[in-house]
Amino acid sequence: MNANPFELKKTSKKSKARLGVIHTAHGDVTTPIFMPVGTNATVKGITSRDIKEMEAEIILANTYHLYLRPGTKTVAEAGGVQKFMGFDGPMLTDSGGFQVWSLKQFRKITEEGVRFKSLLDGSMHMFTPASVMQAQREIGADIIMAFDECTPYPSTVDEADESLRLTLKWTREAKEWLEANPPIHGYPQYFFGIVQGGMHKDLRLKSIEALKEVGPDGYAMGGLSVGEPVETMYEIADFCTDHLPEDRARYVMGVGTPWNLLELIKRGVDMCDCILPAKNAQDGLVYTSQGVLRYKNQKFAHDFKTPLDPNCDCYCCRNYSRGYMRHLHKAKEPLGWTLSVIHNLHFYIHLMQQAKAHIADDTFEEWADEQVKILQTNL
Amino acid sequence: MNANPFELKKTSKKSKARLGVIHTAHGDVTTPIFMPVGTNATVKGITSRDIKEMEAEIILANTYHLYLRPGTKTVAEAGGVQKFMGFDGPMLTDSGGFQVWSLKQFRKITEEGVRFKSLLDGSMHMFTPASVMQAQREIGADIIMAFDECTPYPSTVDEADESLRLTLKWTREAKEWLEANPPIHGYPQYFFGIVQGGMHKDLRLKSIEALKEVGPDGYAMGGLSVGEPVETMYEIADFCTDHLPEDRARYVMGVGTPWNLLELIKRGVDMCDCILPAKNAQDGLVYTSQGVLRYKNQKFAHDFKTPLDPNCDCYCCRNYSRGYMRHLHKAKEPLGWTLSVIHNLHFYIHLMQQAKAHIADDTFEEWADEQVKILQTNL
Repeated sequence: MNANPFELKKTSKKSKARLGVIHTAHGDVTTPIFMPVGTNATVKGITSRDIKEMEAEIILANTYHLYLRPGTKTVAEAGGVQKFMGFDGPMLTDSGGFQVWSLKQFRKITEEGVRFKSLLDGSMHMFTPASVMQAQREIGADIIMAFDECTPYPSTVDEADESLRLTLKWTREAKEWLEANPPIHGYPQYFFGIVQGGMHKDLRLKSIEALKEVGPDGYAMGGLSVGEPVETMYEIADFCTDHLPEDRARYVMGVGTPWNLLELIKRGVDMCDCILPAKNAQDGLVYTSQGVLRYKNQKFAHDFKTPLDPNCDCYCCRNYSRGYMRHLHKAKEPLGWTLSVIHNLHFYIHLMQQAKAHIADDTFEEWADEQVKILQTNL
Repeated sequence: MNANPFELKKTSKKSKARLGVIHTAHGDVTTPIFMPVGTNATVKGITSRDIKEMEAEIILANTYHLYLRPGTKTVAEAGGVQKFMGFDGPMLTDSGGFQVWSLKQFRKITEEGVRFKSLLDGSMHMFTPASVMQAQREIGADIIMAFDECTPYPSTVDEADESLRLTLKWTREAKEWLEANPPIHGYPQYFFGIVQGGMHKDLRLKSIEALKEVGPDGYAMGGLSVGEPVETMYEIADFCTDHLPEDRARYVMGVGTPWNLLELIKRGVDMCDCILPAKNAQDGLVYTSQGVLRYKNQKFAHDFKTPLDPNCDCYCCRNYSRGYMRHLHKAKEPLGWTLSVIHNLHFYIHLMQQAKAHIADDTFEEWADEQVKILQTNL
């Protein structure tokens, strides 16, 4: 093992922003990239055609959810998650570590793993580093994640250090299991380790140094955007990328807004995922090239001329007005949600495309600083 | 007025099945036709592209719903319902008569019209024949319906006769209002009268004769599929088409299953609409060329080879398996509903296309009799 799917193409002279490619059996992923979340092997309310049309290069699914329903063996029977959900591009699975950790009173963490109660039917289950790697072998994503313990925020140095010890132990066990148990779907699955250590830089450094010895195929930063100030999140990510190997992909998990993404790219991050664009879509909040639009606002009730974003060429903006979108939202029509998800994901993906073009042109930093201001405007 | 958008092309020699065309400003509609229901100016969970792709030739929207939200004046501001919802094909609006009648304890019927309470905000409203015609002028559908009182089932001859008297009075008032108030969107709106009379043939005949004197542009049969045995429904429709003018379109409102449609076509019906395919889609029930499929059944959990209907070329059947559809249903994922709606509506529309081809070939009756049996099979 210890293969490296990542190819570094360029690093900006004025910041740590990078261009790269992740090579997978299901195609190449150009970085920096935003990964739409398809928790249950479906991106909320949209079809594989919509996913292709918005030019998503990689989709994320969740081991925890697929383990409980329909079961990872069932996904394996279907020929892996890509065939199961009718999406033939690259995929990544989250290990489920964050989900079982989030169950709080319904889980017990031990040296061996996490015992938890299913909220679907009350049944008891055990996730261990080995069982979670087996589940990810069955699901068959191109990139699979280590099983980690998320460090709560805030946490003392001692608490964060103890949590980190467990994550590192589990990461070693996962790597060993993977080495003894090759992929079952006939193509490589790249193993990413997860940097923890809370907001303590010395622990983040300790985590990185220990992970380097384990030798994963790529590096994720976990335990960010868990309640800390946004500047702290940027600072920790910045610190981590200073110490992570240049030649490996760097992934910040579960972050964030469009401006968060630009700030992270500037700090040397290659990959991000977040449920925010789909979740906010459900509340009638969309991101646009002019700022944040809450289209359910009364002032848009009679606007039948303007799409959600006049500068967007997504299916929603090409065909529907703000006034109609507001009507769908008020009438609780499922089409309103679907169209908003299409717009928001398209917006994120195309923002990343613009970021790549600006890094290539050596104009990223000025552009990004301006965008960070514009994108936060409330329309 | 008294224009006739309908052109009769052929009547079968072996039954009353007909081929025809309804000419509208937004395009031609070939009959027999099934009209997908887009109550709130949106067909549940699907886009205009999906509607086009399933080859829907005409969509139905509802005056009652659009009156309450966003308001028919707002729809008029958008340039009419087609522009409002981004669908540039022919449309029909139901008058809202059935909806306010269904409110039962929240409405009061008088000679002038129906006073009712909005279930959205408790406000009081009054529908009169004139106000409903004005609302339909504002919405701007190509075919607009008379404001009628639906006759309950069962009803005595006296009750049904009294109800019919009111419907006829309102139909005359509606026609007078329309003659004094031309369309506002720059294209014709054809006015269909509604035959009532309960399950009493003499009253249905009385209704038809009186309507002929009013002279609507087409004829609908209302008050069917309201609890009566299916054979009675067929018998009343059959009786009505025996007495309706040959050269006018005939529309049975709110019916029904795929086999109901074939039976009605055989009895000389040209147009149908029903919420059934979208409603059943939500429950994981789909119609297929082999029968009725409840794909949430456990026996389909591991079927990743078969689409909902192996003989269907809808977007869902081209891309997704029964096993995946079951997963979406169990996980309550909105995509499951959307894909099921796409399949069911595509199935209805393509069944009508087959019916047309068989009427053209003089093979409709044998084919329809066989289909009526197959389509009801429980898979």
